[in-house]
Amino acid sequence: MKKAIEYANQHQERFLEDLIEFVRIPSISTLPEHKEDMQRAAQWIADKLETLGFEQTAITPTQRHPIVSGQWLKAGKDAPTILVYGHYDVQPADPLELWESEPFEPTRRGDNLYARGVSDMKGQLVAHLSAVESMLKTNGLPVNLKYMLEGQEEVGSPHLDEYIEENKENLACDFCLNVDAAILAPDQPSITSGLRGLSYFQIDLTGASGDMHSGTFGGAVDNPAIVLARLITGMKDSQGRITLPGFYDNVKEITQEELDKLQIIPDEWWLEQSGAKALFGEPDYPAGVRATARPTLDVNGFLSGFTGEGSKTVLPAKAMAKISMRLVPDQKPERIRQLMEDYLKANVPESMSWELNEHASSTPAMVEVDSPAVQAANQAFEEIWGKSIVFVRQGGTIPAVGHIQDILGADSLLLGFGLPDDNLHAPNEKQYLPNFFRGIETYIRFSYHISG
Amino acid sequence: MKKAIEYANQHQERFLEDLIEFVRIPSISTLPEHKEDMQRAAQWIADKLETLGFEQTAITPTQRHPIVSGQWLKAGKDAPTILVYGHYDVQPADPLELWESEPFEPTRRGDNLYARGVSDMKGQLVAHLSAVESMLKTNGLPVNLKYMLEGQEEVGSPHLDEYIEENKENLACDFCLNVDAAILAPDQPSITSGLRGLSYFQIDLTGASGDMHSGTFGGAVDNPAIVLARLITGMKDSQGRITLPGFYDNVKEITQEELDKLQIIPDEWWLEQSGAKALFGEPDYPAGVRATARPTLDVNGFLSGFTGEGSKTVLPAKAMAKISMRLVPDQKPERIRQLMEDYLKANVPESMSWELNEHASSTPAMVEVDSPAVQAANQAFEEIWGKSIVFVRQGGTIPAVGHIQDILGADSLLLGFGLPDDNLHAPNEKQYLPNFFRGIETYIRFSYHISG
Repeated sequence: MKKAIEYANQHQERFLEDLIEFVRIPSISTLPEHKEDMQRAAQWIADKLETLGFEQTAITPTQRHPIVSGQWLKAGKDAPTILVYGHYDVQPADPLELWESEPFEPTRRGDNLYARGVSDMKGQLVAHLSAVESMLKTNGLPVNLKYMLEGQEEVGSPHLDEYIEENKENLACDFCLNVDAAILAPDQPSITSGLRGLSYFQIDLTGASGDMHSGTFGGAVDNPAIVLARLITGMKDSQGRITLPGFYDNVKEITQEELDKLQIIPDEWWLEQSGAKALFGEPDYPAGVRATARPTLDVNGFLSGFTGEGSKTVLPAKAMAKISMRLVPDQKPERIRQLMEDYLKANVPESMSWELNEHASSTPAMVEVDSPAVQAANQAFEEIWGKSIVFVRQGGTIPAVGHIQDILGADSLLLGFGLPDDNLHAPNEKQYLPNFFRGIETYIRFSYHISG
Repeated sequence: MKKAIEYANQHQERFLEDLIEFVRIPSISTLPEHKEDMQRAAQWIADKLETLGFEQTAITPTQRHPIVSGQWLKAGKDAPTILVYGHYDVQPADPLELWESEPFEPTRRGDNLYARGVSDMKGQLVAHLSAVESMLKTNGLPVNLKYMLEGQEEVGSPHLDEYIEENKENLACDFCLNVDAAILAPDQPSITSGLRGLSYFQIDLTGASGDMHSGTFGGAVDNPAIVLARLITGMKDSQGRITLPGFYDNVKEITQEELDKLQIIPDEWWLEQSGAKALFGEPDYPAGVRATARPTLDVNGFLSGFTGEGSKTVLPAKAMAKISMRLVPDQKPERIRQLMEDYLKANVPESMSWELNEHASSTPAMVEVDSPAVQAANQAFEEIWGKSIVFVRQGGTIPAVGHIQDILGADSLLLGFGLPDDNLHAPNEKQYLPNFFRGIETYIRFSYHISG
């Protein structure tokens, strides 16, 4: 182990160069014009795995972006077999004007590296690959590894379940190491004990057959932007409680016992991070619980009519909203979709035609908190950070966790080194570099501890 | 008069060429990138007036786009002096993909000429200029004319009142001939007896200091798109009644006497023209009254968050809506602005900062229905169309009518030959060409009849 850590320390600059090279590829999965970049990013990882001596390295096409895989199984039958999950796709970079440096030209300022995808999650992926290299170049790997890296996490992992189903035997493992993760603060290691699920919809309303003059037709014809505003208003009240009928039916209240174990980020942090004038949400819960252990509903986008500078007196023909819900145990995306459909059927007026599309859906997931994997991770954290882990619930969604549990029957350990203020999915995303380097060492120590 | 009409008939193709040339200039007043085109359009008219022998021809700058003016006062003291009002600016052409031919490449299909601004109102302006040429080239003008043509009607005529105030004496007239007008149907001449006013606002809400990850921050931080949806929902109910407090305070109910005189366009027409599945509005009024003699409130545009293809799990920092009201006597835009401000002060939650901007405002206007000008117009219509005029209330807004009444003390006669289905402010705007040619003759006959 010592030699591997030494190797890692000696090669920090090289590992950072690897990260910069990888982050330069604008692998935005949701935008069709980046299809080729997605291929380049997949190839980058496959080449890396080949170089490291992995076997059965493959880039397997799906309906959209491929899944990269590879195995190293020479640690022997008694060593644990770990499925390493991650993704090589990133979020779109807009609004571009709010970036202080180019999103795909990684820029170092102080202790941080700024670029889209650097924390979510190319930084974590390169850290793990660097740990693997450090072990292979010294004493060899003490664990068997199977990599499964997808290119569609940021669009809700739509084809991952099919892939896992089709490769079920080949992916068999003792547990999944999910490196798409973060810790609570630079000096506070943590492990995720729960993730929210997701239902992401798009509603399209159409009134008139084309945009009309609001002077000529205003008063005679209905306005889809107003109807959509009314529909949205009916989904969530001014106290932050979701009023979509039936929405809370299957929500399991968080117990006092779990609350006692959890690290709840205080309101001040949310206020400071968001820069909002005031926080907002269900009055009975603090922000740290509302954003992690309670379901919510947000409008992610709204577009209708004339949105340029100045005025245009148009009565729009169409209005579109992207609306997503974060789900908690035991809510199911299928049921949420049904509720949404029922709501629209009951509430869209006869003046409008409507369409509902589901862009993404994923089940909420809980993680076993006293498994050997969690214990090994805790040991590694204690050795490097000098502190025990705390447990946190994460507000975000990783569909893979649910799929791997459902299909492979394997628990996931979320182990990664992003930070809550890394501006994920927002301008000026960053990776705190001391965490990147400590992360490499943590992955090395974890591998040795879990192998006994 | 006969010779002028003969001249007009002989020069129809030339007049149409003039119109095509003028419409080719994309004089979109609201878009800064068309500033030069606005100058070109102004110059085009000024050149025309010069060629016709007008005096004091001028292109007077305002804070944005210039006003073109010119006079021909050789008809003598006893002849009436008419202020001709019109505008040379047009609406933006988007959405471009819905045009069947290029918006600024006038295209003839059947009896119609298709192009942005061809009916609103370059067609009417060229028709009047053609009538003037026909009279000047034959027996001379029987009336004194003062042209005042602005470049900002489509953005609410923000600097017209200042201009009229500063040129008050020079603009003195017996009445204003406003050629920014239409008739009810190709076979039904009509005169506008009332116009709605306009209050056009933009509301900008800001929550967080930047776009946030909806997984990480959803539940902790408020969503400006939802807040804006809630604010809009509070302004208008599901029956089409405006619920902005105080909105109806100064609305003068239309009398049965006026209703009896008015031509009300039947619901079928509105349904067919809009292509909507059903009409919508205050249940106590038919669509033809709601869209002309009742005030209304519409969202003209709404933008927030991610509006591209697919999904992005963003919690937007900002939301923007353009909201306009059409006003009827005796509502005042100043009071409406106050109501809007009061409403936002009372209802925007502490989680949001907000900004209210007024893009345009204009007083509703009524027109004297038994003036000599209306009688002269009726006579001209009867001679050409073989039918007497009917009176209509127009849903749209022409701020000039209010300003000219307020500052010059002059009534306006709205006389133009657009049609209700000309797709004003929408894709595939058209001018029905038989109306263009009959319009020229109508302007000639009107000039002779009004001069006695």
